[in-house]
Amino acid sequence: MKEFMDKDFLLESETAKKLFHDFAENTPILDYHCHINPREIAEDRQFDNITQVWLGSDHYKWRLMRSYGIEETYITGDASDYEKFCKWAECLGKAIGNPLFHWSHLELQRYFDYHGVLNRKTADEVWNLCNTKLAQPSMSVRSLIRRSNVTLICTTDDPVDSLEWHQKIAEDRSFNIKVLPAWRPDKAMNFEKADYLDYLDKLCQVTGIEISSFAALKKALKQRMEYFASMGCRVSDHGLEYVMHCPASNDEIEAIFLKRLNRMTPTREEQLKFKTAFMLFLGREYHRMDWAMQLHFGCKRDNNTKRFELLGPDTGFDCINNDTPSAQTADFLDALCKTDELPRTILYSLNPNDNQSIGTILGCFQDSSAIAKIQQGSAWWFNDHRTGMTEQLISLANLGNLSGFVGMLTDSRSFLSYARHEYFRRILCNLIGTWVEEGGFPADMKTLSEIVRDISYYNAKRYFKFEI
Amino acid sequence: MKEFMDKDFLLESETAKKLFHDFAENTPILDYHCHINPREIAEDRQFDNITQVWLGSDHYKWRLMRSYGIEETYITGDASDYEKFCKWAECLGKAIGNPLFHWSHLELQRYFDYHGVLNRKTADEVWNLCNTKLAQPSMSVRSLIRRSNVTLICTTDDPVDSLEWHQKIAEDRSFNIKVLPAWRPDKAMNFEKADYLDYLDKLCQVTGIEISSFAALKKALKQRMEYFASMGCRVSDHGLEYVMHCPASNDEIEAIFLKRLNRMTPTREEQLKFKTAFMLFLGREYHRMDWAMQLHFGCKRDNNTKRFELLGPDTGFDCINNDTPSAQTADFLDALCKTDELPRTILYSLNPNDNQSIGTILGCFQDSSAIAKIQQGSAWWFNDHRTGMTEQLISLANLGNLSGFVGMLTDSRSFLSYARHEYFRRILCNLIGTWVEEGGFPADMKTLSEIVRDISYYNAKRYFKFEI
Amino acid sequence: MKEFMDKDFLLESETAKKLFHDFAENTPILDYHCHINPREIAEDRQFDNITQVWLGSDHYKWRLMRSYGIEETYITGDASDYEKFCKWAECLGKAIGNPLFHWSHLELQRYFDYHGVLNRKTADEVWNLCNTKLAQPSMSVRSLIRRSNVTLICTTDDPVDSLEWHQKIAEDRSFNIKVLPAWRPDKAMNFEKADYLDYLDKLCQVTGIEISSFAALKKALKQRMEYFASMGCRVSDHGLEYVMHCPASNDEIEAIFLKRLNRMTPTREEQLKFKTAFMLFLGREYHRMDWAMQLHFGCKRDNNTKRFELLGPDTGFDCINNDTPSAQTADFLDALCKTDELPRTILYSLNPNDNQSIGTILGCFQDSSAIAKIQQGSAWWFNDHRTGMTEQLISLANLGNLSGFVGMLTDSRSFLSYARHEYFRRILCNLIGTWVEEGGFPADMKTLSEIVRDISYYNAKRYFKFEI
Repeated sequence: MKEFMDKDFLLESETAKKLFHDFAENTPILDYHCHINPREIAEDRQFDNITQVWLGSDHYKWRLMRSYGIEETYITGDASDYEKFCKWAECLGKAIGNPLFHWSHLELQRYFDYHGVLNRKTADEVWNLCNTKLAQPSMSVRSLIRRSNVTLICTTDDPVDSLEWHQKIAEDRSFNIKVLPAWRPDKAMNFEKADYLDYLDKLCQVTGIEISSFAALKKALKQRMEYFASMGCRVSDHGLEYVMHCPASNDEIEAIFLKRLNRMTPTREEQLKFKTAFMLFLGREYHRMDWAMQLHFGCKRDNNTKRFELLGPDTGFDCINNDTPSAQTADFLDALCKTDELPRTILYSLNPNDNQSIGTILGCFQDSSAIAKIQQGSAWWFNDHRTGMTEQLISLANLGNLSGFVGMLTDSRSFLSYARHEYFRRILCNLIGTWVEEGGFPADMKTLSEIVRDISYYNAKRYFKFEI
Repeated sequence: MKEFMDKDFLLESETAKKLFHDFAENTPILDYHCHINPREIAEDRQFDNITQVWLGSDHYKWRLMRSYGIEETYITGDASDYEKFCKWAECLGKAIGNPLFHWSHLELQRYFDYHGVLNRKTADEVWNLCNTKLAQPSMSVRSLIRRSNVTLICTTDDPVDSLEWHQKIAEDRSFNIKVLPAWRPDKAMNFEKADYLDYLDKLCQVTGIEISSFAALKKALKQRMEYFASMGCRVSDHGLEYVMHCPASNDEIEAIFLKRLNRMTPTREEQLKFKTAFMLFLGREYHRMDWAMQLHFGCKRDNNTKRFELLGPDTGFDCINNDTPSAQTADFLDALCKTDELPRTILYSLNPNDNQSIGTILGCFQDSSAIAKIQQGSAWWFNDHRTGMTEQLISLANLGNLSGFVGMLTDSRSFLSYARHEYFRRILCNLIGTWVEEGGFPADMKTLSEIVRDISYYNAKRYFKFEI
Repeated sequence: MKEFMDKDFLLESETAKKLFHDFAENTPILDYHCHINPREIAEDRQFDNITQVWLGSDHYKWRLMRSYGIEETYITGDASDYEKFCKWAECLGKAIGNPLFHWSHLELQRYFDYHGVLNRKTADEVWNLCNTKLAQPSMSVRSLIRRSNVTLICTTDDPVDSLEWHQKIAEDRSFNIKVLPAWRPDKAMNFEKADYLDYLDKLCQVTGIEISSFAALKKALKQRMEYFASMGCRVSDHGLEYVMHCPASNDEIEAIFLKRLNRMTPTREEQLKFKTAFMLFLGREYHRMDWAMQLHFGCKRDNNTKRFELLGPDTGFDCINNDTPSAQTADFLDALCKTDELPRTILYSLNPNDNQSIGTILGCFQDSSAIAKIQQGSAWWFNDHRTGMTEQLISLANLGNLSGFVGMLTDSRSFLSYARHEYFRRILCNLIGTWVEEGGFPADMKTLSEIVRDISYYNAKRYFKFEI
């Protein structure tokens, strides 16, 4: 029996161990997609206690606690941070097979040097240990990022965002890790939402452009993209129900948009047409600006109306949408490709059943403008565990170019989540190690180490064209 | 090489063996969903031969025989019981990788103490051995249940059922294992069926309520639910094409229902609306009565018209329906949750691709009224094998609370099928054992044994609130 | 660590090794579905260099090269054969986990006795070695087929094809391996295509029947089927978006067809109705003629319009269509079964998520007219790798009769692809070996060897009723 989560955790062969410890473990981290708050970096936030770090906004953990029948007061409610932590510890001690068990213990090991098990019995010990450590300067946000060997971070930002915190970080010579904005214009696209016209007002305010037509909206977005680019942005991101393709004429789109400006509710078909036009416009702009386009899809959000009204979005009530027609995804990419305007694109589906259809779509649009120009993103959100990552890696290898994969990202709101890169690299090295030990690939450490280091870091650096 | 299906069958590590033999093997069985005939328990039926037990109504076995090109006369036809058994033995001997091979041999081992292999050559030996044993009192239906360490059984019953046999069993002091009805009102919902009005007549007869409106139907069903509750019922069950959500006003539903009473055929849209209303009504009633709601979906039944006309339903001609939109499932549960009327719910899809979307739906509706209030049911029917069970367990662990899982059920028409609980427990212990041996969870036998025993029995006891 | 792709490649247990080397390895090959050009057999083509064999028309390899960012000139363009080979070698050396890595090295081992690794560094050595060998008579097309222990090949042919090369091969007494046509009437069905009327002209020319109605089309097809049958054809094949079932009256179909003859574009619904009628007609004819029906579905073709216009079809721009409703597949088979006109049928979906729904559909239509009358085809195209094959085999075993499986086919345009049969057999023997070593099936080598040999060859021979 292996020791509990020791240095060779998840590494089942000698080749896997060698690949991880000699090549992956110390390679830097490029976190090209996350949801951390740049203000906390700018201000170099220090945390009062482990509950703030772990349970302040982590809806993964909230969901798990609800599955254990924990009352909401201990999750998002008025209970004390200590009480919340104890409830969490109690859940975690029984969370066998859940990725949060592994992530949390990796974080305890790497950032707090705690190598025991967190459960009901050890809750007090861990609470005290973590809080003592968190009081040290080495546990400030910037220190955590530095210790994690991160070279570059992309946050996720709305077009109307001032990017003031990114500016402050860039100007601060004492912190030389790049923190760049990423462009996420979902609010500008989701025109069926009740507060859409308010959003357009904000966009008008920051651009000075009155949004009285789709043409004006496009003009305003272009202006903001220029601003984002001036702040170092090289990546966009979208959250889509699915990657749709319902083409319509420009006149029709203008008419649909006008209806919405006049406060009429768009039909389902009108929504699909408008969003298709919106995405085609942006896809072309990304190509022009040499940005990468990230498409996250297959999610149905805010399913619990009662909780949504109390807690708002991103509080743990989302699920997989299993209706994600591959035909439309292919047609959307083709529409951009026809005119040579398809940007580098990364597809992420929340539905793991889409691994193979995505893998085959990639192959239809690759060209010599980049290695693995069209990518399948790393196992996303609900799939971000050993099973999901392994299946994504195998599917990608079966159907395309694994060695060109841009690899892992944290997708997280927490500064401890860099441990997920370690998790990913262990799984990657283990998979490759197994293949080699079985005689399925030569035990040529030069090639293998190159593949491992590229997927861990260097592919992303090249693919996004970051200057680091 | 391991011995053929020995005591450590499916147990690949020392931890797995320990967990199974020390904690799972002797834990009682709570069979909260099956299709056995309560009359056979009331009458303590004795079987003449193994064909009666095994091949009398087991459409799993019939399907396999048809796949081997066996003539229907040896399956559901006029051939002798001996001939049918011989044909079955011949198929089974070649049924490598099929769960029936394992189930049948587990049953031969546990109930007949036969540890060899059943095939064409051993058919006579096994036929004689089994039939000799079946003549003994220790092989009556009640003895089989007792020997299997069963404490409680839920059958599957129609609202119009008199439950007379449940009554007789309850009154019989010589048999103290609980045999409770479960409420399955599919016939009251499927109003597109040709014989629906005949069914309403029956419902009228048992309730005295003339079903002249949807309101009257609801009144009649409530009356029958009260009766079922008085007989100890605490669980409902539904068979659905998919868990749909097409809301409509009460007036519209009444109008649709009236059309059907007037012998008009409902459109597809009308069917979806009526069934949504029917399910919302019952969901709320279940919540009020504190019953659990089981939703079985993703099945397309009776696909072979020719055979259906000869043999009727449940004869081996069903398949997976792969169109099961997760969005509607989430919306249906949300509709109940909005008004705090969502009962404890178990979702079973026949489509194993739904594992992950279901796992994420669960997490949207958990609350502190129960541990793992919304559950994913154990791998169902066509998935009820090592692959299907393992994948369901892993998906559930990845996405939610495995330790709160209510675990296995037989779903069977046979009194030998309790061996499936053993099969499940071996697979469960092996999975957990593997995780522990790999260093992915602490080798803390107290926690592990609690998890294993809870999933084997105690979670179901608590979840359904059975008094045993 | 195992040696790189040695004689026990993919064989992880002693039982697996024994099954493969003693029983599978030397069993002949019956390649009942491929895309090789019969003219090359008739003329006993000799190749100038390895690029001609490997990269001349293999769109699997082209896709992989594009994923590595290789310029099109080195793929389908004007670069020299040597340059193309070097680019391919460079990709292959990094193609870890991709089936092309394994297939290519198996082919180098079996046909060129090269046991090293092909990559950038060894490209020249391999180029020279292969080309020297290719110049030898033992590397002509016929020699390759003979060396591969092939007894029978089915090509894939259009109804208007003259089958002249099949005729020539049949008449040539010096070559006694059967090369039979297979009937693939996709062009006669896809009446939405721009060149459909041109196709009908060709059909008119070869049959003398003017296609002025659907009835006339059917008459012409029947005439061609008789001709194909006279040339030994016993198998049909179809490429479908999905197996649809949208029944319509004969009058309606004639009206739809007439519209098309009058150059009107059929609606989506009209297409589905016409294709359903077309398939039902042919299904019945296949039953009458005792042909097997192969249905390949779940593919969306020619997704890259720009490349399609330059390169045409089958150039590496296809993807999985993940919308393949199982309900319609079941209804289509039922429509044929109702009147006892369902032929032996093999279902192949490009979407691996369909494994289980297909497995359950099979079971609805089996009967005593054949062992495993309705089959799931071997993992197809994008699934034709270790993962895909293993999952297809496990799913088939779980849900039906693995021992009756007709097994592998090359589906290839290359004469070196017989190595895929070896790949499949290794995977099959490994799976069965694992089951036996785990104690899940008796170590009865007589039964096991029969199963392995049947799946490798004899089942196909019996199923298709080939006279060899």
